[in-house]
Amino acid sequence: MSALSPISRAACIGGGVIGGGWIARFLLAGIDVKVFDPHPDAQRIVAEVLANAERAYGLLTGAPLPPRGTLTFCASLSEAVADAQWVQESVPERLDLKRRVLAEIDVGAPPEALLGSSTSGLKPTDLQEGLAHPGRLFVAHPYNPVYLLPLVEIVGGAQTVPATIAQAKAVLDAIGMKGVVIAREIEAFVGDRLLEALWREALWLIKDDICDVETLDDVIRYSFGLRWAQMGLFQTYRIAGGEAGMRHFLAQFGPCLQWPWTKLTDVVDLDDALVEKIGAQSDAQAGGLKIRELERIRDENLVGIVQALKAGRGGEGWGAGKLLKDFEQKLMAQAGGAAAPGIASPLVLLETRVSPAWIDYNGHMTEHRYLQVFGDASDALLRRIGVDLAYVEAGHSYYTVETHLRHLDEAKLGEALVVTTQVLASDEKRLHLFHRLFAGSERREIATGEHMLLHVDAKAGRAAPAAAHVLAKVNAIADAHAAMARPDAAGRAIGQKVSAAA
Amino acid sequence: MSALSPISRAACIGGGVIGGGWIARFLLAGIDVKVFDPHPDAQRIVAEVLANAERAYGLLTGAPLPPRGTLTFCASLSEAVADAQWVQESVPERLDLKRRVLAEIDVGAPPEALLGSSTSGLKPTDLQEGLAHPGRLFVAHPYNPVYLLPLVEIVGGAQTVPATIAQAKAVLDAIGMKGVVIAREIEAFVGDRLLEALWREALWLIKDDICDVETLDDVIRYSFGLRWAQMGLFQTYRIAGGEAGMRHFLAQFGPCLQWPWTKLTDVVDLDDALVEKIGAQSDAQAGGLKIRELERIRDENLVGIVQALKAGRGGEGWGAGKLLKDFEQKLMAQAGGAAAPGIASPLVLLETRVSPAWIDYNGHMTEHRYLQVFGDASDALLRRIGVDLAYVEAGHSYYTVETHLRHLDEAKLGEALVVTTQVLASDEKRLHLFHRLFAGSERREIATGEHMLLHVDAKAGRAAPAAAHVLAKVNAIADAHAAMARPDAAGRAIGQKVSAAA
Repeated sequence: MSALSPISRAACIGGGVIGGGWIARFLLAGIDVKVFDPHPDAQRIVAEVLANAERAYGLLTGAPLPPRGTLTFCASLSEAVADAQWVQESVPERLDLKRRVLAEIDVGAPPEALLGSSTSGLKPTDLQEGLAHPGRLFVAHPYNPVYLLPLVEIVGGAQTVPATIAQAKAVLDAIGMKGVVIAREIEAFVGDRLLEALWREALWLIKDDICDVETLDDVIRYSFGLRWAQMGLFQTYRIAGGEAGMRHFLAQFGPCLQWPWTKLTDVVDLDDALVEKIGAQSDAQAGGLKIRELERIRDENLVGIVQALKAGRGGEGWGAGKLLKDFEQKLMAQAGGAAAPGIASPLVLLETRVSPAWIDYNGHMTEHRYLQVFGDASDALLRRIGVDLAYVEAGHSYYTVETHLRHLDEAKLGEALVVTTQVLASDEKRLHLFHRLFAGSERREIATGEHMLLHVDAKAGRAAPAAAHVLAKVNAIADAHAAMARPDAAGRAIGQKVSAAA
Repeated sequence: MSALSPISRAACIGGGVIGGGWIARFLLAGIDVKVFDPHPDAQRIVAEVLANAERAYGLLTGAPLPPRGTLTFCASLSEAVADAQWVQESVPERLDLKRRVLAEIDVGAPPEALLGSSTSGLKPTDLQEGLAHPGRLFVAHPYNPVYLLPLVEIVGGAQTVPATIAQAKAVLDAIGMKGVVIAREIEAFVGDRLLEALWREALWLIKDDICDVETLDDVIRYSFGLRWAQMGLFQTYRIAGGEAGMRHFLAQFGPCLQWPWTKLTDVVDLDDALVEKIGAQSDAQAGGLKIRELERIRDENLVGIVQALKAGRGGEGWGAGKLLKDFEQKLMAQAGGAAAPGIASPLVLLETRVSPAWIDYNGHMTEHRYLQVFGDASDALLRRIGVDLAYVEAGHSYYTVETHLRHLDEAKLGEALVVTTQVLASDEKRLHLFHRLFAGSERREIATGEHMLLHVDAKAGRAAPAAAHVLAKVNAIADAHAAMARPDAAGRAIGQKVSAAA
């Protein structure tokens, strides 16, 4: 069993863009995945989605992910589902096909396995018909790109048992996704209902030449799109209502509903002429960017937005950023609980990647991100010696008082980064560290960071001795490191030469 | 005339939340604003919006804004508009009222003044009726919060002359907003059409108990809200279509439009029971957060999202972030053109504020942001000595090779920061700087940064002498600073005491 998630074995039936996204989410959470998809390109498509997901995850978080799960392509559906704890169905959106596949899963999977469908519109009650174990079936509807957008709509049908919904939500929460339970089933649930309403109106606006697709997209992304990345519709309007709040807003805005604004009483005919019009406008909007480039830009922007939200509410995190923060804390607690590796050689406490937000106009990692990486490595060391959230909340911590950085080479977007850490000295109050930063698969040394940390009583606002259990751990590391060569760059001032014999 | 904007005098008729937002946008761009609003609370409301806007702008950008415009409250409409170059009408959404106010503006304002209406739904042709100068009237429809969301829908009516639209767009672009021209007028234009369609469907979902308002908001903000902050509807679907692109997506998705998904053929009755239901659910969702707190969280999140997008596309910027980046470059070019202050005392090259994204879990500015601020100050010095974008693009720049930081005190969210810079030494290739960072109105010293920069030929990847015009400027500063006391902390290594006599 994966220590992170309540399950350790999943099966994915269908490996397209959505199925591939599920596969990536499970594998990155340390869950083994068996896949069945008879499509000749299935392995290639899954490999591409997985590569995108790994890249995006690497940019999104530096938290220690569990060891990747094992991916197995199976020759038959029954082989894929035989020992699964969660089976996710992501085959094309046709009721007859889905029913046939779900019936086969129902027979082949253990009776206690959870059975999720990725359908974006079909009602779970309709999918349950004829199953021997309908109580474990539910809709688990994710959003593209599945490896970055956390939402999963969980919808039960008439025969779904409540425990199924609770178990599904627990698994999703454990792997860093946001399982949202929809109270009553309807076609298309909640998200696609909203999208559908807006989409119909958008098609009319294009057909009637009110604007082109680029203008329509700009209207969204320079205004309410920015709002909705963090708060939804109702919370946004609550604020718009001012001190009087939601009821006031509704009273003000209500009458507008009767105005002749939307054309939605009618469905636009998506004929060849309209398809061609939208296609041509979309080509112009893309400005020559290929789908793969747009996809990369989208993913990097999503990473940046989620990371920005992680810093929201004065550092507590907000929305999708709070979700990421909570997930990272689980990952770190998990890693802290693992058996400590040897401490005699420099510690390897941090492995991460150069994130898109870290790049300057030269295409290199920007200066202050070096210090961020070294700071993260210092934090990892502090967790290792027992300076965890509880210790900090009880009023004690180590603060950095002095730093000396040397830049030796550059790092580029997406490059792997590794920090090694040597404890140069420690006493009751002081902790003297030397980090080295290595980049790329060839592990070239690109920077060093020498840091002096002081143990403080945060409330009193002054230096104070660290707790005994912390000192015991840090001294053990310092003693082990005393045998190591002292870096020649340590103790140097700005401009002072470092001996070539270092 | 404000050098930033083509206009220097605006009038705002109506000072509510939207009018106040316009006032803030104009003032912060260096434009003088005269306001007329007979509402007894108008001055208080405008002051509150302006305070929010100043706070948000301070967090959003460290670029040098022009001197704030002058704000004047007028006793009559005619006084407010008498010498305006742009009059913005933001009175309540009633055609008869707007017509009366616009007629009064039309008489009182210079005939060449632009006349924008903030209406969110009325057609400009209907607003033009009976005006003596209808050619200069247009809709300029912004989105709340106006001081952070850049979008303005520009819509002309039957009598609007094309030059009006072009001038309006030029002014909006110059003050950092995004003027988007809507090709044909309809009620509610584009943004509110889309919002209205989605809003109707949302009300049905709540009324029918499919979900509550918190679930609906979560569905948005954990999925397509994150997508729409950076790309709109069509660009997102273009990617979803894969290599085959937009036409393929439409062919796939087209049939779904005929499915019985939306209930929009019918308008929900927003009766007392539904208003109360939504009100109660919204109270629960807010979890005790007051409107002011939600507003602050929203603004800080918007700042973080826009700043994340500024780092998008490998540092080029994307969407609202690209807009900000371009605006900042204009501001910096502007400031660079100003008369250089004296150089004999330490230079004051950077004033900024502690941004929400800079705060750690202790509520203090996090470690690596100190280096970011010092790096920004170094960049400001480089621009001052002629190392501008053109110089860098031609293949030369200064790279930091070594840094020594001392942390003396903490900084909190929103605190004002000032960096002073002393050039310790310079030669053909090397530039040795000493920064001091001060926080708060009392200007307490919270950190120092000593930096060695090396002039490089970026293509050759090695140190090279700086250009003569750069050396002339940097040497002039270094000579002027030679008379200053050398900071006692300069040249110190980690752990080495700094004399108390410093």
